[in-house]
Amino acid sequence: MNEIIAAVDSRLERFVASRALPPHLLDAIRYALLGGGKRLRPVLAWRSCEAVCGSGERAIAAGAAVELVHSFSLVHDDLPAMDDDDLRRGRPTLHIRSGEAMAILAGDAMLSLAFELIVESVEDALLANSLVRELSQATAGMIAGQVYDTMGGLPHSLSPLERLHMIHRNKTGALIRAACRMGAMCGAADSSAMDAVTRYADSVGLMFQIVDDLLDSEGTLEQTGKRTRKDAAAGKLTFPGVLGLAASREEVERLRGEACLAASILGPRGKPLADLATLMASRKA
Amino acid sequence: MNEIIAAVDSRLERFVASRALPPHLLDAIRYALLGGGKRLRPVLAWRSCEAVCGSGERAIAAGAAVELVHSFSLVHDDLPAMDDDDLRRGRPTLHIRSGEAMAILAGDAMLSLAFELIVESVEDALLANSLVRELSQATAGMIAGQVYDTMGGLPHSLSPLERLHMIHRNKTGALIRAACRMGAMCGAADSSAMDAVTRYADSVGLMFQIVDDLLDSEGTLEQTGKRTRKDAAAGKLTFPGVLGLAASREEVERLRGEACLAASILGPRGKPLADLATLMASRKA
Repeated sequence: MNEIIAAVDSRLERFVASRALPPHLLDAIRYALLGGGKRLRPVLAWRSCEAVCGSGERAIAAGAAVELVHSFSLVHDDLPAMDDDDLRRGRPTLHIRSGEAMAILAGDAMLSLAFELIVESVEDALLANSLVRELSQATAGMIAGQVYDTMGGLPHSLSPLERLHMIHRNKTGALIRAACRMGAMCGAADSSAMDAVTRYADSVGLMFQIVDDLLDSEGTLEQTGKRTRKDAAAGKLTFPGVLGLAASREEVERLRGEACLAASILGPRGKPLADLATLMASRKA
Repeated sequence: MNEIIAAVDSRLERFVASRALPPHLLDAIRYALLGGGKRLRPVLAWRSCEAVCGSGERAIAAGAAVELVHSFSLVHDDLPAMDDDDLRRGRPTLHIRSGEAMAILAGDAMLSLAFELIVESVEDALLANSLVRELSQATAGMIAGQVYDTMGGLPHSLSPLERLHMIHRNKTGALIRAACRMGAMCGAADSSAMDAVTRYADSVGLMFQIVDDLLDSEGTLEQTGKRTRKDAAAGKLTFPGVLGLAASREEVERLRGEACLAASILGPRGKPLADLATLMASRKA
């Protein structure tokens, strides 16, 4: 895992430094992008690529591009007009550190750089196109999820649990799905391998959010590096709020099992993907 | 011109409506995107394509993608933390109408949709990649220009005129350049035609900004649909401020001549490009 993270960080570092950006914009991007994230999405891309072709390295650029989109979304979600968060990964959020205007612009730049990174890095034009399509669709899905979560707009006929699924399949699920699928594309997955990776991704995507909700309701600032109990205070729907704590934990375990089952379809090469699902189920931060 | 604008509007309308977006996000995007812009960039893409291959229609998707990026940038530039504008094209800006959070998210979505539109519309994978590269680089350039304009960061050794050029070559020039070059790419321009289109684009890009500054310093809200005299009030560098009114008008005329000269290299097919430069030089809004 640490090797993957180091490879992705180095790729991101070199790529943003190679762009002709104003020094304080570059500084803001580096702060948001290289501030010790878990790099879950690049790791998922790597492991998915490895699961279909035996090597994860081919998915570095795709994983780095997904991480740029993820970082952009955190910076914008933290803005005063959005979630108004002052802490992220135990440090001041970007708008606290560099001002709101810079946070808006640095976020915009990271989103655009994600697509530039793909076309600059991936030589196979058909593959680059598929990656841009997958990432742009996932970005729109993520934004749709954020709208549903913070501004409503879902059909009134949906139950609270259906709403939660709809919100999070988009808000966190879309990008996790894209990370896995883009990794598999880089490994030239055939359609049955792509189906298995997609099933895996959908399971871990939803699981990730339930674990996130559990950490928000049970964790502390020290553990998570961000303020907790914010969702309940904001009156947001959460899995522990709708299902209760025990059923939420059971759902995590069920989804972990689903993910491991999907990974097993990929044979021995899928084992690291299954291990990653287990790690994600038990994360504490 | 009206036919081009109608074709682009219809393409944009169909494309955003075809995405699975929450209704109020779609509504915000439609308000910002289909609110009667001049569609200068899609027209430039069309005319540039026409100048190299005889037909402009092939550049509709590229022009529409540039317009999505342009619209996103206007929405974010108008935000309270940025230029804090309440009027645009004679109507309330998006954050006044739909709230700041929605304006941030709708802007983000339009940027991402621009890349999705390219890969969904352009069948030739090599061309699609070149368009994504050109547009993402221009977007980063535009953001860099906005940073230079509002937050400084340029080397102290530059003169005020050099600063102005550096700001606007990026802030407005980059996207105008991309519009023309992407149009030419869609027309399969050879390298000498691409050079001529690029020279044309660089001249009209700078000219556009000087005309903008002149309108801001001499125009009225009724003419322009936005508040005027804002640049001087904000202490921003402007061409009339640095060169004076008379020399700014002369510079517009000089750049118009440069643009027409570049267009003439493309032969009779370049005539509409030259006419467009003349129209841009004399615009009143």
